Amino acid sequence: MKPVAFLTGLTGFIGGKLAERLLAGGWTVHASLRSQSDAHGLRDEVIVHRVGGSVGELTDTLSQAAPDVVFHLASLYLADHRPEQVDELISSNLLFPCRLAEAMAGAGITRLVNTGTAWQHYGTDAYNPVNLYAATKQACVDLLRYYHDARDLSLITLKLFDTYGAGDKRRKIVQLLVDAAVSGERLGMSPGDQILDLTHVDDVVGAFENAAARLVGAERPLCEEYLISGERVSVRELVDIVSKSLGLPVHAEFGARAYREREVMVPVEGDLATSLPGWSRGRSLRSSMAELVRR
Amino acid sequence: MKPVAFLTGLTGFIGGKLAERLLAGGWTVHASLRSQSDAHGLRDEVIVHRVGGSVGELTDTLSQAAPDVVFHLASLYLADHRPEQVDELISSNLLFPCRLAEAMAGAGITRLVNTGTAWQHYGTDAYNPVNLYAATKQACVDLLRYYHDARDLSLITLKLFDTYGAGDKRRKIVQLLVDAAVSGERLGMSPGDQILDLTHVDDVVGAFENAAARLVGAERPLCEEYLISGERVSVRELVDIVSKSLGLPVHAEFGARAYREREVMVPVEGDLATSLPGWSRGRSLRSSMAELVRR
Repeated sequence: MKPVAFLTGLTGFIGGKLAERLLAGGWTVHASLRSQSDAHGLRDEVIVHRVGGSVGELTDTLSQAAPDVVFHLASLYLADHRPEQVDELISSNLLFPCRLAEAMAGAGITRLVNTGTAWQHYGTDAYNPVNLYAATKQACVDLLRYYHDARDLSLITLKLFDTYGAGDKRRKIVQLLVDAAVSGERLGMSPGDQILDLTHVDDVVGAFENAAARLVGAERPLCEEYLISGERVSVRELVDIVSKSLGLPVHAEFGARAYREREVMVPVEGDLATSLPGWSRGRSLRSSMAELVRR
Repeated sequence: MKPVAFLTGLTGFIGGKLAERLLAGGWTVHASLRSQSDAHGLRDEVIVHRVGGSVGELTDTLSQAAPDVVFHLASLYLADHRPEQVDELISSNLLFPCRLAEAMAGAGITRLVNTGTAWQHYGTDAYNPVNLYAATKQACVDLLRYYHDARDLSLITLKLFDTYGAGDKRRKIVQLLVDAAVSGERLGMSPGDQILDLTHVDDVVGAFENAAARLVGAERPLCEEYLISGERVSVRELVDIVSKSLGLPVHAEFGARAYREREVMVPVEGDLATSLPGWSRGRSLRSSMAELVRR
């Protein structure tokens, strides 16, 4: 029997890559799509379910799909929110995953890989959210904990740092620097001394696969969290890596903009949680630069 | 200048009593009321604001009221929820307080007394929610933590156990037993060996007053949580206290119903947090029974 996955966040960068990897690995892949989401360009093999707002509908969908593992990657990311965006953050990052967990309990589906963020840990605190987005991610784990404690949910939360990889349409720093190197455009930047923690999307996807296998192999419900930590370089070092790897100058204007309020200067260390057993980083920044050049 | 309070949850049992106490203590009392709430029977002195859903509207209301302290008591309490009630729990217990904190930040209002529940601690765990209601209370504190860390919110969360007092219209155990003693009605009960932690509403209101004073006197933003623990008696002992205090038999049928799933047999001990400084219990069950007899 082929293993069955149910994904949220299929249209996102990591979700799309995870779907490809699961399909290649012989999984049957179901995905929920919000009714307003664009399904254009999605892989045909993915079985797409348009879901509305009710727990009942989601329960029926999960009962039919009967996934071995649910991968929850859908989320609304806002580095800084405006007051009127509180509602969207709560809806996407708390209401939806709570409905999902409730529907899983109703359908008898027990295994969930959830996505968190290293930004739950500003400075070195066990919990100190960088922004409201990170606070909703922490609060979500609190809600899921009820489903673990009372409803047998088996749960692993992967807390991601920054990610990169070919085909990334998010305006993230690695791709912006590669694009600037190619175009020769000047790039106004912060002073650039903050340390980044960067993981290639292939490695991130590997962490999700690994967590799924861990849930499938567990004898009793888990409730675990792991930081998925990659390569650590300062922004200035990253500019240097991009430039040298591609053999092109990057016209970075350091100090053209100030640091963000609550800029993370040094990412949290992995000792807040042990590493995800069996997972390690395979890809490096230097070896990945060429593939990031858009054709 | 009279101190100014802004209350949510005015129409609830504790909220109503707190409003009376604050008025008696010389406070100006503002309260937000959801547009569908019944304002019938509320004290005339309370300045009621009908609030809709937007952060902007709430920000304007808070700017005008300019409270020294916001008391957040509004919440949706469900001992057990049905799947379709997930939305109401998230909306009442996470979306609304997040909007409130966002509006406070926007209006420059910094002091908040928040209400939690001892049910965030099933067994002796630092966090193990008895039910989804308790999980939303924990998640709420994690959202508020962002406003503390990033927006200077000064916050005290009071985690309540069971409460009682004259005029309580909630179907809570102390009042039910008093009513049964007076009516002579038989009462089908669980086996009755679970320990309750009971605080008179006057003492609970005193804890809110105390927390407000603590926030006003603090030199920098606080982020504190306190368990408000009262008298501990088993259900069987409570039946005995009611019966002896009123000189009336209580026809309790122990074992007529089973314990609730995840019934709290022994409430969490106060060592999870130090006690609220300066607060102690003044009222006892025995001395309060007579006032609970409805006339």
